[in-house]
Amino acid sequence: MLRVLQRLPRKLALPSPHHNIRCASTTFEYLDIEDTGNEYSIVRMHRKPVNSFNLDFIKEMIEAVDCCEKTSRGMVLTSSLKVFSAGLDIQELYNPSEDRLQEFWNGFQELNLRLHSSPLVTVAVINGPAPAGGCALSLQCDYRIMAEGKSIIGLNETHLGLTAPLWLCKVFAQVVGHRLAELHLSLGTLLPPEEALSIGLIDAVVPADQLMDSADAEMKKWLAIPELGRSRTKGLLRKEYIDEFVSKREEDAQMFTGAVKDPMLQDVLTKYLQALQKRSR
Amino acid sequence: MLRVLQRLPRKLALPSPHHNIRCASTTFEYLDIEDTGNEYSIVRMHRKPVNSFNLDFIKEMIEAVDCCEKTSRGMVLTSSLKVFSAGLDIQELYNPSEDRLQEFWNGFQELNLRLHSSPLVTVAVINGPAPAGGCALSLQCDYRIMAEGKSIIGLNETHLGLTAPLWLCKVFAQVVGHRLAELHLSLGTLLPPEEALSIGLIDAVVPADQLMDSADAEMKKWLAIPELGRSRTKGLLRKEYIDEFVSKREEDAQMFTGAVKDPMLQDVLTKYLQALQKRSR
Amino acid sequence: MLRVLQRLPRKLALPSPHHNIRCASTTFEYLDIEDTGNEYSIVRMHRKPVNSFNLDFIKEMIEAVDCCEKTSRGMVLTSSLKVFSAGLDIQELYNPSEDRLQEFWNGFQELNLRLHSSPLVTVAVINGPAPAGGCALSLQCDYRIMAEGKSIIGLNETHLGLTAPLWLCKVFAQVVGHRLAELHLSLGTLLPPEEALSIGLIDAVVPADQLMDSADAEMKKWLAIPELGRSRTKGLLRKEYIDEFVSKREEDAQMFTGAVKDPMLQDVLTKYLQALQKRSR
Repeated sequence: MLRVLQRLPRKLALPSPHHNIRCASTTFEYLDIEDTGNEYSIVRMHRKPVNSFNLDFIKEMIEAVDCCEKTSRGMVLTSSLKVFSAGLDIQELYNPSEDRLQEFWNGFQELNLRLHSSPLVTVAVINGPAPAGGCALSLQCDYRIMAEGKSIIGLNETHLGLTAPLWLCKVFAQVVGHRLAELHLSLGTLLPPEEALSIGLIDAVVPADQLMDSADAEMKKWLAIPELGRSRTKGLLRKEYIDEFVSKREEDAQMFTGAVKDPMLQDVLTKYLQALQKRSR
Repeated sequence: MLRVLQRLPRKLALPSPHHNIRCASTTFEYLDIEDTGNEYSIVRMHRKPVNSFNLDFIKEMIEAVDCCEKTSRGMVLTSSLKVFSAGLDIQELYNPSEDRLQEFWNGFQELNLRLHSSPLVTVAVINGPAPAGGCALSLQCDYRIMAEGKSIIGLNETHLGLTAPLWLCKVFAQVVGHRLAELHLSLGTLLPPEEALSIGLIDAVVPADQLMDSADAEMKKWLAIPELGRSRTKGLLRKEYIDEFVSKREEDAQMFTGAVKDPMLQDVLTKYLQALQKRSR
Repeated sequence: MLRVLQRLPRKLALPSPHHNIRCASTTFEYLDIEDTGNEYSIVRMHRKPVNSFNLDFIKEMIEAVDCCEKTSRGMVLTSSLKVFSAGLDIQELYNPSEDRLQEFWNGFQELNLRLHSSPLVTVAVINGPAPAGGCALSLQCDYRIMAEGKSIIGLNETHLGLTAPLWLCKVFAQVVGHRLAELHLSLGTLLPPEEALSIGLIDAVVPADQLMDSADAEMKKWLAIPELGRSRTKGLLRKEYIDEFVSKREEDAQMFTGAVKDPMLQDVLTKYLQALQKRSR
C-alpha cells in the first residue's frame, strides 16, 4: 500500500491562472527578479554596498513578494552582492522624523509578515553575512541554505544597545528553541555557518559555487508536494504567530520608535556613523 | 541524604480496586488485550491488512483505552500485523455521507484525546510502518520504541493534498520542535527509524525481536514511579494542549470535513483507490 | 562595515549610581555575598548540611537578589557546601500549619519569580548535587555551569509522590524542550553532568577547580554587552512566562498546599524522616 502511495502523482494538477503574468513590467532599483521557468522565481537583492534596508528598498521587497505570488509557486531570496544583508539602514534610525520612522518600521513589519505568511515556498540562499535584519528575513523563509566559509548569521541587536522586536525573538526561538534563543539574543551572537547549522538556525551549508544548485534541488522537492496540502499546512502552523504579530503590531512600533529616539541610542549611532565615515575616507 | 532518598520505596502503596476487573468480557474484532499481570496491558491491533482506522476500529480502540484504565496502570500499544498502522481508512473518506464523516472524525479526535490525556503510562511499540494516523496515535503516547530496519514513521498528509489537523501538528511540534515540524509536515517526510530517533520523533530503536522486552523494561521503569506524582505531572504538562484541542474541536471537524468533500481531493482518492484495486488484482 | 561594528565599544557608558552601596550592612545567616569589584557579586549559600530551603533561608535569598540588583550588574549563585542545594526543606512540609505552609510556598514562588525576572546577569555555578528545588533555582538563571564528576541535577519531585509546579515544569520545558520535559519530569530523572549538558539542562561542564574562573569568564562576556539591550531583551523574552506565573500564583499555591496536606504524602514524609533519623544516628 505504501509503495502504491509513492507511485501516485505527488503534485495535484492545479489550475495555474498566472502563467502569463510577468513581473517584467515592474522596474526595481534595488533588486531583480528572475523567473526560472520551473514554477519558482529568484529575487536577488543588490542595494550597494551591503543590502541595508531603507524605506524604498523595503517597499520594493514587499512588491517583489507580491509579484512572485502572482507568477510563481516558489521564491528564492538571495543577494548579488558579497553580503546577504546587513539589516536595517542605520541612516533611517539616525535623527529621523516621527513620521518617517513610523513608516519605516511599519514597512519592515509588513515585509516580515508578508514573507512569513506567504503561500510561496520560500528558500533563503545566504551567500554572505546576514546579521540582524538580514538574519530576520531569512528566518521568515521556509528553508535556509548558507555558503561555507567565513561568514556569520545572527541577531546582534543588543550590541548596539537595541532589542530585537518580540516577533523576531519569537521566530528565532521557534527555530532554535527557547534556551538558545535567550542565550544568543542576549549575547547578540553572530554564528559561523557550521555553528548555525548545528543549532538549526540554518538548514544546510554548501560550497558557495553550489548554492543555487542546492536551492534548485530543494525547491523542486518542495514544489513536488501537492500545493493545497503544503500551503494549508504552512498556514495552519504559522497562524498563531501571524495573529499575535498583527495584534501586537502597534505596541511593537511604539517600543521600537521609543528605543530609537532614546538619546543614549542616538549617541551610539552618532559615534557609529563617525567611525564609518573615517573608515571610508 | 540523596542516598537515603534512593533507598525509599519509589512506589506508593496505592489501593488497587480494579485487580479483579477483567476486559475479557468485551469481545473485540480488530484488537486484543493481554493483561500481563505486571500492572500493565498490551493492546495488539490486527485489522487486516494494515490496521487502517475505520469507524468501528476507532470505537474499539476507545473501548480498549477505557478497559486498560480500569484494569491496569500502563498500556503498551502495538500491532500483530506487519504494519503498525497505515492511518485512516481511505474508504471512510471516499464519497462519505455528511453524518458518517462527522462521526468518523469525531471518533478519531476522541481516540487521540483519550490517549493523550490518559493517566495510564502509554508505550507505543512501533513494529512496522507508521505513516499519518499511525504516527498520530504513537505521538499521543508517553514513549515510542521502534523496530530497527526498513520501516518509516511520519505525517505524510500533504502527499494526498491533505493537511494534518492542528492538534496533530502541535503534538508533532512538541515532540520534534517547531522548525523540524514545519519542515517535515510540509514535505510529508516519512523517516526511517534511525532518522526518527535522531530528531526525537521516537525514543528508542531496537531489533524487532527485542521490542516487547524493551517495552517491558521501559514500562517497569515508569511504573516504579509513585502513581500520584507521575500521573498528576502528566496531567499538568498536557492540560493546555487538551484544553485547546477540546475548545477547537468543532472548528477542526469543519476544516476536516470541508477538506475531504473538496472535489479535488475526491478526484485524488478515486485515482488512488483505482491504483490500489489494479495492484491487488 | 561588520569589522567597524566589532571595533565599537560593546558596552554603553551607563550611569552607575550604585557603586557606593554595599550589602555589608545586611547580615545573612545562611549565605554570604562577595562583591567581586568587577560589576558582579557572588552569592554563596551555606545552610548546613545541604542548603535545603526553609522559610528563613528563602527570605534571605530574596534579600540577596535585592541587594545584588542594587550594587551589581551580575550575580553568580553557588554554594560553599558540597551540595549545591537539595531543594525544599522537608521539615517545612511535615505537618505544617496552614499559614506557615502558605507563607513558605509564597516565598519560594517569590524567589523563583525574582530570579527569573531580574535584570541582573545570573550565572548558576552548580558545584554539587542539585535535585528538585536546587535545580529549580538554577533554571531561573541565565546560564548554568556544573562541576565535572559524580553529581546530579534534575527535578525528581515525582519520586516523593509530588508534582513539580506548573511554572517549574514550564521553565524546564523551555530549557530542554517539551518531549524531554515530559520524559524527565515523569520519571524524575536525576542526570549526571555530561547527560545534563547533552540535553541543554546545563550550558557547560568544567573541572571543579575551574568553576569560578569559568563563571568569571562567562560573566565578563555577558557584562560586555550593552546593559540596555541585554536586559530589555531578557525582559521581552521572559515577559509571557512571568505574566502567566503571576496570574496563576494563587491557583498554584492551592495545588501545592493541597498536595502537601494529602495524608498519603504525610505518610511518605513520616517514613522518609524516620529513615533520615536512623541514618544520622
